[in-house]
Amino acid sequence: MATVGKVIKCKAAVAWEANKPLVIEEIEVDVPHTNEIRIKIMATGVCHTDLYHLFEGKPKDGFPVVLGHEGAGIVESVGPGVTEFLPGDTVIPLFLSQCGECRFCQSPKTNQCEKGWTNSRYDVMSCEDTRFTCKGQKVLQFMGTSTFSQYTVVNQIAVAKVDPSAPLHKVCLLGCGVCTGFGAAVNTAKVEPGSTCAVFGLGAVGLAAVMGCHTAGAKRIIAVDVNSEKFVKAKVFGATDFVNPNDHSEPISQVLSKMTNGGVDFSLECVGNVGVMRNALESCIKGWGVSVLVGWTDMHDVAMRPIQLIAGRTWKGSLFGGFKSKDGVPQMVKAYLDKKVKLDEFITHNMPLESVNDAIDLMKHGKCIRTILSLE
Amino acid sequence: MATVGKVIKCKAAVAWEANKPLVIEEIEVDVPHTNEIRIKIMATGVCHTDLYHLFEGKPKDGFPVVLGHEGAGIVESVGPGVTEFLPGDTVIPLFLSQCGECRFCQSPKTNQCEKGWTNSRYDVMSCEDTRFTCKGQKVLQFMGTSTFSQYTVVNQIAVAKVDPSAPLHKVCLLGCGVCTGFGAAVNTAKVEPGSTCAVFGLGAVGLAAVMGCHTAGAKRIIAVDVNSEKFVKAKVFGATDFVNPNDHSEPISQVLSKMTNGGVDFSLECVGNVGVMRNALESCIKGWGVSVLVGWTDMHDVAMRPIQLIAGRTWKGSLFGGFKSKDGVPQMVKAYLDKKVKLDEFITHNMPLESVNDAIDLMKHGKCIRTILSLE
Repeated sequence: MATVGKVIKCKAAVAWEANKPLVIEEIEVDVPHTNEIRIKIMATGVCHTDLYHLFEGKPKDGFPVVLGHEGAGIVESVGPGVTEFLPGDTVIPLFLSQCGECRFCQSPKTNQCEKGWTNSRYDVMSCEDTRFTCKGQKVLQFMGTSTFSQYTVVNQIAVAKVDPSAPLHKVCLLGCGVCTGFGAAVNTAKVEPGSTCAVFGLGAVGLAAVMGCHTAGAKRIIAVDVNSEKFVKAKVFGATDFVNPNDHSEPISQVLSKMTNGGVDFSLECVGNVGVMRNALESCIKGWGVSVLVGWTDMHDVAMRPIQLIAGRTWKGSLFGGFKSKDGVPQMVKAYLDKKVKLDEFITHNMPLESVNDAIDLMKHGKCIRTILSLE
Repeated sequence: MATVGKVIKCKAAVAWEANKPLVIEEIEVDVPHTNEIRIKIMATGVCHTDLYHLFEGKPKDGFPVVLGHEGAGIVESVGPGVTEFLPGDTVIPLFLSQCGECRFCQSPKTNQCEKGWTNSRYDVMSCEDTRFTCKGQKVLQFMGTSTFSQYTVVNQIAVAKVDPSAPLHKVCLLGCGVCTGFGAAVNTAKVEPGSTCAVFGLGAVGLAAVMGCHTAGAKRIIAVDVNSEKFVKAKVFGATDFVNPNDHSEPISQVLSKMTNGGVDFSLECVGNVGVMRNALESCIKGWGVSVLVGWTDMHDVAMRPIQLIAGRTWKGSLFGGFKSKDGVPQMVKAYLDKKVKLDEFITHNMPLESVNDAIDLMKHGKCIRTILSLE
């Protein structure tokens, strides 16, 4: 390609500062350095974590930044030392790396690779090493990816090669939300056949968690959300019962306990709210209930009474659904192509990159599940 | 025996109210009702939970009560319907029942039987059904047992029959503290061979946890206590490293993280302090660290940042070390007789029941590991 070995100028949505609309700018994307891949992003989802950075986390030293971490694209060129990828490969950039060599990658127990951006400045959700500039200024890469740009550069330890027949405007969702929710149920909670589950929060992550519970063979899946409009979609993914906490005067954990003779076997918090996290734990049955934190927040402490755990509950958390990222994403793409997991049903809106602020507004007001932005 | 079928008058240490010394009184112990066993208690340990009830929990409706729940004795008589026990059997009363029939007993995942006193008034740590009176007044049975009495009455679902050759002045410790700590490591944390562990708090429960880690094959066992005098004993049970948080200016979780290149694989909180519980969680390595609450408190919330779990840690709790009580205690007695677990090393003092307030003082001021009271 004519661009190989050269800085690329392209369109990207830049977040210059917190709480402000993104601005479509022309940015410069450097050539890939050693072990890096430059990717032409074709499509990206908009995820709550992008909004979290912009409106809630608002980290000092977190701006300017190109948000977006749920994309798919085609390899444009590769840097020195890249052995696994060739230009033209169909790929999904990964916010969670899998170097394959660190002690975490070598353990079957975890997907928390030690080599990615998450190990430095996880609180800023980006490292200082970036290939982007705009107007002479360094622009950060959000979560090591930055898919709200027509081109991005990612280390090969954080890229998954996927089936080239996969529709990128769908499988981009496997870069974050769907794997996160689905895997939290299947890999982290390890939902069992015949069990009773509760999923708190019915955004894309929560719906994917419902799908994960269903795939794992749960008998009963209780979908919980303060917005009853979300129940129709939850049913599509396999939910069997629907509870709006606002319809009840007693605590939601008591409502669920009565519905289930003592509590659910598995609960998944897919909101990112410390109050809901506590409710989800308290909704589990004593003895063997497992509650998993899936939603992201790091603003506040979450609290509980020690008796909740001493009575036999287990509290866990899940990052990217417990999937080892480079291994898991191609498997999930295959599962989609084999019609074993749904993706189309998450997508409520399609827009060009230029409409990114509309997409953010839709999500902020709970008016979408997923919007797919096209960057072609 | 001459006492069968009759109310027995005997000595017991009665806690008439919170924060006051116990009083040695003559109490009346009723005949065993259906499915109940009357036991002549020969020896009992004094456990922190007894002190917790008296000085911290101080539940309304929790007095007068006969404390003590770590005893051993001989069956004096049995009530109608008792099939598993005969007068003369050597037994350990259990504060945690194992009915064998409820959904919890039938699950291999838990020891939290649904039939015992814990399911009603667990906050008062006794149910209203008692076989004790004193001076015309009903006296509660603490944790369904009350081993600070020469005789007590317990339902057969909460009694373990043990090897008659077992020395009661030793194996009484298997009624609570030693099983609690040992099992928390072996059954709940499931400590793995070659792993690194930290045990917070080096009372009997913590020392038993150290022993459990050692038995499970841990390579490194870090003993943590603010009282460095306890380290000598911890070494006897298998501890390899010793840390007094007061010797360090930085948080204990950071001290342990530096010692272990990122944190321990397993941590066990054996104090019952919500601050220590948080420290123990934060001392675990991300990815696969497991922290277990073993110490008892229910006075305050315990808090943490959600990232602690999202980063791959698991938070659990343990009651009676995860042992199904009727099955586990006889096995632990056998393990002691086979010299596979230590008991003698926990015992620092022996006294008659009349000295119970001295024993309580010793424990309150950290001057003992376990005091054994003789009731003969």
